[in-house]
Amino acid sequence: MTSSAIQDRYPDAVSYCYGCGRLNPDGLHIRSFRDGDEAVCHFQPRPYHIAIPGFVYGGLIASLVDCHAMGTAAAAALADQPPGAEAPRFVTASLKVDYLRPTPLGPLLELRGRVVDLTGRKAVVAVTVTVDGVITARGEVVAVRMPDDWQPAA
Amino acid sequence: MTSSAIQDRYPDAVSYCYGCGRLNPDGLHIRSFRDGDEAVCHFQPRPYHIAIPGFVYGGLIASLVDCHAMGTAAAAALADQPPGAEAPRFVTASLKVDYLRPTPLGPLLELRGRVVDLTGRKAVVAVTVTVDGVITARGEVVAVRMPDDWQPAA
Repeated sequence: MTSSAIQDRYPDAVSYCYGCGRLNPDGLHIRSFRDGDEAVCHFQPRPYHIAIPGFVYGGLIASLVDCHAMGTAAAAALADQPPGAEAPRFVTASLKVDYLRPTPLGPLLELRGRVVDLTGRKAVVAVTVTVDGVITARGEVVAVRMPDDWQPAA
Repeated sequence: MTSSAIQDRYPDAVSYCYGCGRLNPDGLHIRSFRDGDEAVCHFQPRPYHIAIPGFVYGGLIASLVDCHAMGTAAAAALADQPPGAEAPRFVTASLKVDYLRPTPLGPLLELRGRVVDLTGRKAVVAVTVTVDGVITARGEVVAVRMPDDWQPAA
């Protein structure tokens, strides 16, 4: 596993995401790390991130799947780049999450993402959410790479 | 449109959801209202709910779609119940969101949900997210009704 997060390598202008932007002080600060052919993310839900008492809120799980999938796509795109290259920013075209069973609140969540299809600027990413060794949710996310010359509106 | 939110009619024990629970002080307080055959929700994203600057975070949109779909399913289940009946609580089995275009940050978001299939305890809910008259995202959510005698773990 590499030691710096993919999101640390996004250009500053696209690092304000509520989910994973290092420059959003109010955000979740989701971080993804390359791990072989996959990307891995660990996240500790806050006590208030509940759906029903004792279980993690599905919208948070969707957010984790979303941002981690973008990080996974960026990691794959970085694979043939020199060390230290900026990570390309992908945005979400489609997000699907199947909630297989309730996700208990308390233990650290582990997400693993893998690019299962890459066509031009589009990547399809499969994600699992695991708690204490049990997969509680699966995601499939379609990510589209932003133009490299994108600039925020003035 | 009715004047009380569906979520106000959930039993207290299932009113702690981060997205829509009236008893979660840290939550988003998503509220859904019956409007004919649909349910409608208005939500004002906070300034920090951004994906890239100027646009709403997709994970927030997924959260809104999720909780509003549960509210829509509950509203449909309440249709033949006496006024003031408690709303049944649905949970999410599957959530899909297609992001059709970036959702601008600033204007109020409007979500409309409609039950498109109801089989036993399972409801399929279609949701649109609209900003200034333009649909920016579409959701399809599979909701499953919790057992009426469900109690939180002690």
